[in-house]
Amino acid sequence: MNDFKKELDFLGKIVEQELAKLLPPKDEYPPKLHEAIHYSTFAGGKRLRPIMVMKAAELFGMPYEKVIPTACGIEMIHTYSLIHDDLPVMDDDDFRRGKPTCHKVYGEAVALLAGDALLTHAFAAISKNSKIEGICPNAVLDVIEKVSNAAGTYGMIGGQTVDISSSGKAIDQDTIFYISLHKTAALISVSLWSGARLAGASRNDLETIKRFGENIGLVFQIVDDILDEKGDEKSLGKPIGSDAKNMKSTFFKVYGYAGCLDLIDKLSSEAKELISNYKNNNFFIQLTDFIVNRSY
Amino acid sequence: MNDFKKELDFLGKIVEQELAKLLPPKDEYPPKLHEAIHYSTFAGGKRLRPIMVMKAAELFGMPYEKVIPTACGIEMIHTYSLIHDDLPVMDDDDFRRGKPTCHKVYGEAVALLAGDALLTHAFAAISKNSKIEGICPNAVLDVIEKVSNAAGTYGMIGGQTVDISSSGKAIDQDTIFYISLHKTAALISVSLWSGARLAGASRNDLETIKRFGENIGLVFQIVDDILDEKGDEKSLGKPIGSDAKNMKSTFFKVYGYAGCLDLIDKLSSEAKELISNYKNNNFFIQLTDFIVNRSY
Repeated sequence: MNDFKKELDFLGKIVEQELAKLLPPKDEYPPKLHEAIHYSTFAGGKRLRPIMVMKAAELFGMPYEKVIPTACGIEMIHTYSLIHDDLPVMDDDDFRRGKPTCHKVYGEAVALLAGDALLTHAFAAISKNSKIEGICPNAVLDVIEKVSNAAGTYGMIGGQTVDISSSGKAIDQDTIFYISLHKTAALISVSLWSGARLAGASRNDLETIKRFGENIGLVFQIVDDILDEKGDEKSLGKPIGSDAKNMKSTFFKVYGYAGCLDLIDKLSSEAKELISNYKNNNFFIQLTDFIVNRSY
Repeated sequence: MNDFKKELDFLGKIVEQELAKLLPPKDEYPPKLHEAIHYSTFAGGKRLRPIMVMKAAELFGMPYEKVIPTACGIEMIHTYSLIHDDLPVMDDDDFRRGKPTCHKVYGEAVALLAGDALLTHAFAAISKNSKIEGICPNAVLDVIEKVSNAAGTYGMIGGQTVDISSSGKAIDQDTIFYISLHKTAALISVSLWSGARLAGASRNDLETIKRFGENIGLVFQIVDDILDEKGDEKSLGKPIGSDAKNMKSTFFKVYGYAGCLDLIDKLSSEAKELISNYKNNNFFIQLTDFIVNRSY
């Protein structure tokens, strides 16, 4: 394991410890609900979004420990979105990260409520960030507003709605960009923005880090679409070909394999260029490469 | 119409105007999602919770105009909870307020996403309250944390989970109190608490108003259970007997009609006693009577 992956691993473990403290305990009443929340939250994600919050704070001079509640809040929102997306009425997926999806284990009603709960608790977690010394309450309020926008109809939910309604239809390049920018890139981008905002980054820097996040978020989705066509089921932890099965709109379908590789090249180069002037940008250069080259 | 009902009507209209400004427009892309959000948000609710936020602020000396974003955020949470509760996987209700439920009009996927969106946008709305002059950012952050707790697994979602899992079972008095205190009273109580907190109420006053809210919240639910047995379908806007059909746990089932009337009497007297020492408590005395006597 190289140093970058060691750092991901190290920070990911911290995120998991803090998530366990911020969420109600697994055996809290009512038990089935809390078991379902823990089942999906601790299902072995890479914790990329919370790590981005933490490293973006560090890039602007704030120790990552100070933004952990926000990092965990965003991971709760990510987890809720996976639980709801997997429901039969949405993508109807039976497996995620090598394990049966939440509703396959706990039933659809509890899965729906577990997702609602994670989304709800996310904002309490972020609000708690204001209790940490050196954090400005107005910065936390800005983060809450931006995260809500990125997760709401101007972001993730907007993207998911168009994704679902485009299923089985021939879509154009604008639409696949709309879907991915909203469904995937918005939350990744706001993770970076939030860490930078809490650290007191300037308006210009916030705009730059937001655009960097949109670019690597799009790359993340393009790679996802390629992996669903050409990935390895074992390392992915889910069956490949589910996009085709669900007649999903993907970059692969719109651009083809070669077109996707070109897009990845262009977007990741732009991303690296955007952050080229920052000192200590090494993590973000490696993160970009990691997202380009990931196989799971 | 008496003065109390005129005031409810007047404040309710203000809430609706502000909700329309705080939510994305109905014709925003993607249209079906935003139509569904507007359909359920503007379906003719009584707006009791947001009015409670506003009048609680007034009780502690702050003009109600200053807490409208929080009032609207809580109404968004209430509306999301109705949309998700009506889904087939939950209560499977076809009508609400005399109109087909959200999923009957827009399909289950869009209804699920519209509910998610309202919950998400609620916290952006509340965070915007900090932009209003005279409002302390830390008070807004406290409100976000408390509202999240009242809507999450320690509140509404916890109550809904036990409600669903108790369906068809004989339950005891403790369980029906748990369900109603969490599913119904928590959000009503936190509405009052939030208005009072933003107005700068003392710790003691916050505790009093919270307990007042729990009492009238329980009365609200007991009356709801009675109306489902003995109400008028036309004024209710939904079929009666749906609790029995869904084998729901209700106060009516556990306490009987006479027992319910005794409970209402006890809880509403306690509520009035709690706020008896406040000047200008007239609205809240009338609100208690309104909740006791409502027929819809």
